[in-house]
Amino acid sequence: MPDSGDSSSRPSRPRVVIVGCGFAGMQAARALRKADADITVVDRRNHHLFQPLLYQVATAGLSPADIASPIRRIFRGQRNVRVLLDEVTGIDTGARTVHLDHDRLDYDYLVLAAGATHSYFGHDDWQAVAPGLKTIDDATEIRRRILLAFERAEHEDSEPARRTELTFVVVGGGPTGVELAGAIKEIAAQTIPRDFRAIDTRTTRVVLIEGGDRLLGSFDPSLSARAKRDLEKLGIEVILNTYVTDLKPGIVTMDEDTIRAGNVFWAAGVQASPLAEALGVELDDLGRVPVEPDLSVPGFPEIFVVGDMAAAKQRNGSGDLVPGVAQGALQGGEHVGRIIARELNGTPRSDRPPFRYKDKGSMATIGRARAVAEIGRFKFGGFFAWVLWGLIHVMFLVEFRNRVLVMLQWVWNWFAFSRGARLITGGREPTDSPAPPRALKEQPEPAE
Amino acid sequence: MPDSGDSSSRPSRPRVVIVGCGFAGMQAARALRKADADITVVDRRNHHLFQPLLYQVATAGLSPADIASPIRRIFRGQRNVRVLLDEVTGIDTGARTVHLDHDRLDYDYLVLAAGATHSYFGHDDWQAVAPGLKTIDDATEIRRRILLAFERAEHEDSEPARRTELTFVVVGGGPTGVELAGAIKEIAAQTIPRDFRAIDTRTTRVVLIEGGDRLLGSFDPSLSARAKRDLEKLGIEVILNTYVTDLKPGIVTMDEDTIRAGNVFWAAGVQASPLAEALGVELDDLGRVPVEPDLSVPGFPEIFVVGDMAAAKQRNGSGDLVPGVAQGALQGGEHVGRIIARELNGTPRSDRPPFRYKDKGSMATIGRARAVAEIGRFKFGGFFAWVLWGLIHVMFLVEFRNRVLVMLQWVWNWFAFSRGARLITGGREPTDSPAPPRALKEQPEPAE
Repeated sequence: MPDSGDSSSRPSRPRVVIVGCGFAGMQAARALRKADADITVVDRRNHHLFQPLLYQVATAGLSPADIASPIRRIFRGQRNVRVLLDEVTGIDTGARTVHLDHDRLDYDYLVLAAGATHSYFGHDDWQAVAPGLKTIDDATEIRRRILLAFERAEHEDSEPARRTELTFVVVGGGPTGVELAGAIKEIAAQTIPRDFRAIDTRTTRVVLIEGGDRLLGSFDPSLSARAKRDLEKLGIEVILNTYVTDLKPGIVTMDEDTIRAGNVFWAAGVQASPLAEALGVELDDLGRVPVEPDLSVPGFPEIFVVGDMAAAKQRNGSGDLVPGVAQGALQGGEHVGRIIARELNGTPRSDRPPFRYKDKGSMATIGRARAVAEIGRFKFGGFFAWVLWGLIHVMFLVEFRNRVLVMLQWVWNWFAFSRGARLITGGREPTDSPAPPRALKEQPEPAE
Repeated sequence: MPDSGDSSSRPSRPRVVIVGCGFAGMQAARALRKADADITVVDRRNHHLFQPLLYQVATAGLSPADIASPIRRIFRGQRNVRVLLDEVTGIDTGARTVHLDHDRLDYDYLVLAAGATHSYFGHDDWQAVAPGLKTIDDATEIRRRILLAFERAEHEDSEPARRTELTFVVVGGGPTGVELAGAIKEIAAQTIPRDFRAIDTRTTRVVLIEGGDRLLGSFDPSLSARAKRDLEKLGIEVILNTYVTDLKPGIVTMDEDTIRAGNVFWAAGVQASPLAEALGVELDDLGRVPVEPDLSVPGFPEIFVVGDMAAAKQRNGSGDLVPGVAQGALQGGEHVGRIIARELNGTPRSDRPPFRYKDKGSMATIGRARAVAEIGRFKFGGFFAWVLWGLIHVMFLVEFRNRVLVMLQWVWNWFAFSRGARLITGGREPTDSPAPPRALKEQPEPAE
């Protein structure tokens, strides 16, 4: 490229390394757009993912590329950023060096924004039975499982086995669990009934299990109740105050009760990326880094942790932590990017402002035309909340292209009662076929 | 479903089994839409794939779902069709039974339309080095390899290794090879140059190797020459009269010459699906079934073979076979569906018309705004051919939704010099990470 060596030829410019390009990392890099610095954004994936809509990929409503943007494309015009597809293997906080799988980066400022991963509360073997939803590959795997369940049921002659295939359990009643359960029921009840001949997909059983005493625990209790009522109206069974105690293929165990379910999805717990351990500081019980008010790591003012990896106290007197949502990550990234930009311009470290999280509201969809929303003092649900949810999510998508494609497909899916991305991909390779088909003429069967 | 048992409760209706729902199988089932018969469409994938645009998925221009339609959706309104996701394990032509992995189907008429697969001319070990392009999973794998090559090159310090990463070889100069080579060069030269900092992607080398003495062997020689000229103008090296004699990771060998190439894609040879062997009849050298003029199997008037699995003679005096293109498959499927429909209505078998293939023309794109086309006596190239290519391909897409999405993205990609689906997915699972990142404080490195 014309300006290759942009970063390497001027070693005197301050070096900022940002690990992870989710909402937090992306926003930190953007806030540094005018900084006279060499910024390196490292991610082990080549795309920024709009996670709030990931459940729509998992339920065949959208294509992966509709909610993902190449990180290079995002920063193509920001010439102080270079992007590396790589994975962190270690951090040397003394030498101020990040070790990557294929490289090594010195830094003056380090921003860690690697997000969160599923937590199975010590039962890692449950992952194979009940996949979670964090990446594009997770989403296409869940999509594969949902669509295959109906295909297997159509084949199945035994009624109990068919019932098992047509039973879906979603573990965890947060926004992801609520949205996933609603979308699965919508597919079964509205999208595909006419596509099958042997089964009635409208009899599909969807069970949502939550350990706490209400759904959407971070929302106002009135909305939790409304969400439960709306889900139950759709025919979804909501079980509260109940923990899953064992998961085996086909069987979900909760204390004494069991459910025979061919399909289980995990939306129950998250923990911080294991990258947090590389700092060598004490972590909280979810593996997050307890950060200072400015979001820096105690003892390392040049290292910041933002987004789901950080345990940051809200400064509203409640003592609550900043929630692990897109807004928290965006605002944290912006805050840290601005601090670094100011200090690169000469502002002393002692002038760092604390991070103040501004709650702009929460929303979750419930099936085809319902949602609950909480914006400031306003708490409401129903069709209007759903439209608002759609508009806000489209607005926050990263590329104009994606906004158009998502809008178009939503309108289409809505009017056609359709889901456009009903593809079963991945899984067993066709070439794994045990043996080529055989001519069976010689077989002792009665010829007509 | 309301009408479950549609097929099983009336065993007296004639049973038609169609294996494969590509162009040929889909069209055969559609031609039977008014038939009083129980039609079963069996496919091992849940979607019909619009293969002519598959190279655009492999080159990140379109999403998989844009060119694929759920088979169930296609036939949801055709109530005499049921769809099974299954794989044929054998055919008993005496008992008139198709054995599936999970089922067994008796038939009165059998239509085999399972298409073709790659042929490595006896070198099956080449497949891992040079994947071919037949399925959605093939396409996302090729996309992954193309995008990863640039990522690795950006990382690479050694100039020879970087050159190898930035060298792409496409083996086979038919339409797929020509279109793939053109699209790769277009990505490298126009889509991504500004996205990278260390490499100049415009220096990417793309080599197209063809064994025959011209590209697009099935086209008029004047268009072969034009395609070669247009590709070379784009900077693609075209090598004719040359066979690949060995493929190893990183090295392509042709007789004496070798090319160091990190990326090789296979568009050279196809052979019929191994399903053809299940008939127990003699096959031609590409594994195809030599069919009667009515497309039935010699000795089995109740079995038809259509599409890429059939070796059907053209009835224009040339002795040529019907080419393995979408038009041949669509027309063959239509022909066979009509024969069956007529006979179900009482027309005797002796009245079967022979299949007459009508060549409606051939087209292939060459990069961003060029194509070659041959329609009847008209042979032309350039921008107009490219627009016509686009219109015709959009027109033939199966769902209206897909037509809109494909058009929209083409227009977008064209004006933005963009490729919207630049996702690296699949491959190594993130959880395969050898070890969690480590704190490296204790390491004996010089602290600043």
